Amino acid sequence: WQVSADTAKTEGDLEIVSEDGTFSATLGGRIHFDTYLFDSDIEDPVSTTEFRRARITLTGKAYSWKYKLEQDFAAGDTLAGFREVWLGHDFFGGIIRIGQFKPFRAMEELTSSNEILMLERPFTTATGIYDGRQFQQGIGWNNYWDCYTAGVMAFNLRNADTPRNEGVGVAGRFTWAPINNPLTTLHFGISYSFENANRGSEPLEADADYAGRRGPSQLIALTPGDEDFFFGDFDDEEFFFGDQGGTVDALGLELAGAHGPFYAQMEYTYGDYEGDYNVSEAVFEDFFDAPPSFECDPDFGCFIGDQDVHAWYIQGSWLITGEHKPYNNKKGVFKSPKPRSPWGAWELTARYESIQNDEISHLEADSWIVGVNYYHNPKVRFMLNYRWGDDDFTGDGTDQLGIRAQMNW
Amino acid sequence: WQVSADTAKTEGDLEIVSEDGTFSATLGGRIHFDTYLFDSDIEDPVSTTEFRRARITLTGKAYSWKYKLEQDFAAGDTLAGFREVWLGHDFFGGIIRIGQFKPFRAMEELTSSNEILMLERPFTTATGIYDGRQFQQGIGWNNYWDCYTAGVMAFNLRNADTPRNEGVGVAGRFTWAPINNPLTTLHFGISYSFENANRGSEPLEADADYAGRRGPSQLIALTPGDEDFFFGDFDDEEFFFGDQGGTVDALGLELAGAHGPFYAQMEYTYGDYEGDYNVSEAVFEDFFDAPPSFECDPDFGCFIGDQDVHAWYIQGSWLITGEHKPYNNKKGVFKSPKPRSPWGAWELTARYESIQNDEISHLEADSWIVGVNYYHNPKVRFMLNYRWGDDDFTGDGTDQLGIRAQMNW
Amino acid sequence: WQVSADTAKTEGDLEIVSEDGTFSATLGGRIHFDTYLFDSDIEDPVSTTEFRRARITLTGKAYSWKYKLEQDFAAGDTLAGFREVWLGHDFFGGIIRIGQFKPFRAMEELTSSNEILMLERPFTTATGIYDGRQFQQGIGWNNYWDCYTAGVMAFNLRNADTPRNEGVGVAGRFTWAPINNPLTTLHFGISYSFENANRGSEPLEADADYAGRRGPSQLIALTPGDEDFFFGDFDDEEFFFGDQGGTVDALGLELAGAHGPFYAQMEYTYGDYEGDYNVSEAVFEDFFDAPPSFECDPDFGCFIGDQDVHAWYIQGSWLITGEHKPYNNKKGVFKSPKPRSPWGAWELTARYESIQNDEISHLEADSWIVGVNYYHNPKVRFMLNYRWGDDDFTGDGTDQLGIRAQMNW
Repeated sequence: WQVSADTAKTEGDLEIVSEDGTFSATLGGRIHFDTYLFDSDIEDPVSTTEFRRARITLTGKAYSWKYKLEQDFAAGDTLAGFREVWLGHDFFGGIIRIGQFKPFRAMEELTSSNEILMLERPFTTATGIYDGRQFQQGIGWNNYWDCYTAGVMAFNLRNADTPRNEGVGVAGRFTWAPINNPLTTLHFGISYSFENANRGSEPLEADADYAGRRGPSQLIALTPGDEDFFFGDFDDEEFFFGDQGGTVDALGLELAGAHGPFYAQMEYTYGDYEGDYNVSEAVFEDFFDAPPSFECDPDFGCFIGDQDVHAWYIQGSWLITGEHKPYNNKKGVFKSPKPRSPWGAWELTARYESIQNDEISHLEADSWIVGVNYYHNPKVRFMLNYRWGDDDFTGDGTDQLGIRAQMNW
Repeated sequence: WQVSADTAKTEGDLEIVSEDGTFSATLGGRIHFDTYLFDSDIEDPVSTTEFRRARITLTGKAYSWKYKLEQDFAAGDTLAGFREVWLGHDFFGGIIRIGQFKPFRAMEELTSSNEILMLERPFTTATGIYDGRQFQQGIGWNNYWDCYTAGVMAFNLRNADTPRNEGVGVAGRFTWAPINNPLTTLHFGISYSFENANRGSEPLEADADYAGRRGPSQLIALTPGDEDFFFGDFDDEEFFFGDQGGTVDALGLELAGAHGPFYAQMEYTYGDYEGDYNVSEAVFEDFFDAPPSFECDPDFGCFIGDQDVHAWYIQGSWLITGEHKPYNNKKGVFKSPKPRSPWGAWELTARYESIQNDEISHLEADSWIVGVNYYHNPKVRFMLNYRWGDDDFTGDGTDQLGIRAQMNW
Repeated sequence: WQVSADTAKTEGDLEIVSEDGTFSATLGGRIHFDTYLFDSDIEDPVSTTEFRRARITLTGKAYSWKYKLEQDFAAGDTLAGFREVWLGHDFFGGIIRIGQFKPFRAMEELTSSNEILMLERPFTTATGIYDGRQFQQGIGWNNYWDCYTAGVMAFNLRNADTPRNEGVGVAGRFTWAPINNPLTTLHFGISYSFENANRGSEPLEADADYAGRRGPSQLIALTPGDEDFFFGDFDDEEFFFGDQGGTVDALGLELAGAHGPFYAQMEYTYGDYEGDYNVSEAVFEDFFDAPPSFECDPDFGCFIGDQDVHAWYIQGSWLITGEHKPYNNKKGVFKSPKPRSPWGAWELTARYESIQNDEISHLEADSWIVGVNYYHNPKVRFMLNYRWGDDDFTGDGTDQLGIRAQMNW
């Protein structure tokens, strides 16, 4: 028998590591299959089944460089399917990466979709205040020490699926876990993000999917980019006038902890969406799904200046089978528990989240979620969420029952 | 030398199995490359070369769970490219699966595309009476015993590429092989399918590609779904009025057998496509490619009620190099022969198939196919089909010469 | 410990080879991440970052057959993402392949994108005179002997992403390396290509991206295909009249060599784009971005007959760290150097290229490029190009600074 000097391994994935450690490669993946049932109100979304994620993930190492190439087939086209795609190298103890990955912003944003507490991420992430800007293209560095993590990224305002443009941004995050032992973790974090729209940039928006995936959404704030955005003439039925470009600043705070089978996490993010534009009432309603809640000028329409956006949530869980939610001190986020018994782990979950625009009266959405997670083994999880959505601006109160069957490898 | 406790294997694929059998993973694939030459009649399709399939297939196991993630790059976008994508677990001796896979309907439908007898499947499958509904999203269970197999699936009326909707269906199949030894197999099967269109559902259609892939097709029956389907006013040039939704029932019978180098298989499927709608003559002709063959009301147009659809085929082959077509008693379908000699196996094939709508006179299509399959080795096959197409409703008789080069691993 | 009879290997990829050599399989990939900054002139393209390539590549062997299935996720949809997709078998010492691959035309065309000297290929390739026809579907054979290589392909005028059509073509290439030792290589090559547009064929064009990727382009020549191409009436504002179909002949010559750290390569290609059509001045300007440089008939418009196109380039490099650019005598192309020191290899590069249509005065584009390549290890390369573009026909002189971070495995 001829035997290999290189080691082949599997935990449901394919992995080969060379004898001297110079090279390695892994092919993994994940399937998240959802069912959504809506209890509709003013909005009336269609209930359905849907693949939330169906990904392959290639990671590897050659000499001192690493790569990751992740594609989500559930995205429809292969550019929309780009997730983490980068090459990286050790740099001052951490790793420097070039390509597409997540800017260092919210704690739950940086938590793997295999390990998030609820079906969807909260309003402090790209599911809310950073709407649609989960992945960006650029260069970044991150590192960790005993109880600290730090990460920073400079990026072009796009991912593989959004238009070519000259917008730029930067984001950074720092976390501190003063207590972190097998029983108890206490975590503090802070992040800052700056985005500057420019030639060819899409609008920067905060947007709330307050009744879950495939439910209704409420636009919370909009900073224009540069995509044929300005049209019409004052006094027309439909117009939009003002300065192009604009910036978005955001500051996020994190507080989280776990003690035995209990876990709680909260984040607050304040965003300043730059504005200096006028829209007609018709355009306002087209954007925000309801008439303006303030007086608009009969000639010049509705003026929208800088918009202060507040997003926050608090979530927690109780592992009734007694497991503990471990802390990933390399990334500064919590992970999923590993079931202790052959019957798996059961977790009760709850979250309240809210997002609002201070400048436009009643422009606010929030939701309550309660749920159950069942971890059958370390690779398979089932989730159930009931979500009460509430859109103050339109008055809609659509609710959603969501179920997920999930396997990753 | 450091050696692996896990086993790495290949038969042109990548496979790793952990020492204790807890985990395994495989990356396989297939390429089917076709050439189509048409002998046109009334219809005049373009001859061409085309990738019929170009798939990667990840399968694996982690503890008691299995997954399959299969993507066909020949489909154009990654949602259309979803094939079997599911997670599954042992359940009462069989396997329960959640995700996207084939409802248990026709025998040739459930035969792998690597092992079907002709270039395309017959009219009793999603290539005919279940047009475009080969894969559906839901939950199913199947099992086998000595000479029986059984499978059942409950599903949402969609695959990853079709619109979100609230339609539901169920399908089941039972097979019995009273004789199954290395020389002779005799197979009986029965399947039943029920589909109920609902909010957001696409129309349910039976449709015949009677002259092969990329040739002309003839709509045989249509049950409306709920996609802005109803338009116009009576007396308009174009209108379509009636009840939304509707159901489709289908019952299939299978009889097949192999004896030495000979093999024969036939299926008959009866489908009841619910209808209760009126279309203008212009709309009828737009749907069915020919004017109505019955009297339409001058004001209310052409009434289409419940439609009885019959589809059947008989196919067979002779392995002139003496191989035997083996039977897969786990799935209740026949497999490809393995060539015995280094020069491969040669197989002569023939099929007649027909599909018709009883309610609309002359609405019928059929085709004759003769062909040759050459199995160079267990992974590589070449196919040649000559197909005489015949569409009674339009009078078209387009023929096709099709050639396939196929490798799977 | 149970050990594998099959060998698992990695160099950042996944590879398994069966003990007896009957089977093997590899999963590799590449990421090319670019940044483009334009110095605009008449044209004003948007600067941006972009994934130039993000590919997975499956190759393998089963008995005497091989396959390759390569998909580029940076292409957007999976048909556009088809790269080499074929099955192949030994044939008279070489390999015969069926499926999609590159016709045997220009030397730099057949050089891997991981190893091309500049960010983009020159005008003698599918980036210029064979615009967009880099991959075609068909059957081909190639082989090599001591100092010769030969390759020939017969193809349908399409790749997986272009329309089904009945156009056909053939291309062949022969190379001779009279000197090829570790210090010095001298290479001669000749190629010939013939393309015949037919039913359903797209137009055959020569087109120059003279200021790099995502910059402006200049149409150089056009032979009509058969896609609703002919429209209008003489004397209309917009019309296009003439014979459908048409052929393109091209002959290419190659001269290249390396000596120690120095390398130079040049190619000249002459193409005859058949024409016999008239276009209105408005259509001409729409096609060629500038008014005709010749007299057009007031009634019958601008006549375009057969067009002689000349494309050529000369490029070279100096490896200032002393490495040597090796020659791939199996394919008749040069490869990337392997860095000798742990600090990598540095290479200074330059290219001049030009393409012109003899029949239309001033219809010519050219560009100068200077650059630096840094090979950190055999799998990772960084590239910088500064490119001065020049379009004689429109007068545009857009320049581009391009940077690439590249890893392949």
